[in-house]
Amino acid sequence: MELKIISIGQLKNNPILEIQKDYQKRILNLSKSVGFKKLLIKELPISKKVSVKERQIEETGIISKYIEKNNYNIFLDSDGDNIDSLDISKIISKNSFDGKNLIFFIGGPDGFNKDILKAANKIISFGKVTWPHKLVRIMLLEQLYRGITILKNHPYHRN
Amino acid sequence: MELKIISIGQLKNNPILEIQKDYQKRILNLSKSVGFKKLLIKELPISKKVSVKERQIEETGIISKYIEKNNYNIFLDSDGDNIDSLDISKIISKNSFDGKNLIFFIGGPDGFNKDILKAANKIISFGKVTWPHKLVRIMLLEQLYRGITILKNHPYHRN
Repeated sequence: MELKIISIGQLKNNPILEIQKDYQKRILNLSKSVGFKKLLIKELPISKKVSVKERQIEETGIISKYIEKNNYNIFLDSDGDNIDSLDISKIISKNSFDGKNLIFFIGGPDGFNKDILKAANKIISFGKVTWPHKLVRIMLLEQLYRGITILKNHPYHRN
Repeated sequence: MELKIISIGQLKNNPILEIQKDYQKRILNLSKSVGFKKLLIKELPISKKVSVKERQIEETGIISKYIEKNNYNIFLDSDGDNIDSLDISKIISKNSFDGKNLIFFIGGPDGFNKDILKAANKIISFGKVTWPHKLVRIMLLEQLYRGITILKNHPYHRN
């Protein structure tokens, strides 16, 4: 089983990249024991089209190539379920047993063309606030790490 | 009028410090025009007491010295109002007119002793998920920046 994040936008030399690497390391240290051998983060380019609508359509088209029916596809979207950390641990746990790959999709600065959400197995949200897509990636990694520590009963999640 | 964040925990060489500095610069570039001359971030030490209860009591005692009745005191707590970005812009705007200093309080890894929340003018939350206190600081800075850009009708908030 694999854990994948498919994300629009590249971090490059942003300090967020350092934080991402740290979370990747910490997640990989624990994730095998809950069934995930790999954690892949795939960055896809932000569209350069002029209008929001055109950018959404182009980015949604690119991202849709990574949706596979045999996987469990989770989209991050402000209209999704406002989950808590325990919900994340349940998602990770459920999928461990189903033997599916768990794929998280994060849109670009303009978000998704909502049509793509029909292909989602689950849509999740981190509160009502609008978050920048780069920060959302870190927030997701944090919740994946926290979710794994909940499953493992590791002391981190009690903080 | 001043904008202050009173926070338990020190960032030191953490890459989160780089992100904090970037947000501070961006906020100061715009904040004068919405009435805030300064943005101060005060870091207070994490308690070294053995039990969660003792740490909460010590940290809450230290942080309570920064509560002033003439200020507008906002606490970040998971039980607070699940606000959106527009709510933040309203908080900033309201206080601009009241002429009060706006003080945001962020607890340590164990959170606040809930008694301190009685002194709050407002309690806000970023969704149901548990966030680490260091990341919460960045999330708050992001929302303050976003809130100011909403007031200024700056293009950032449309992303």
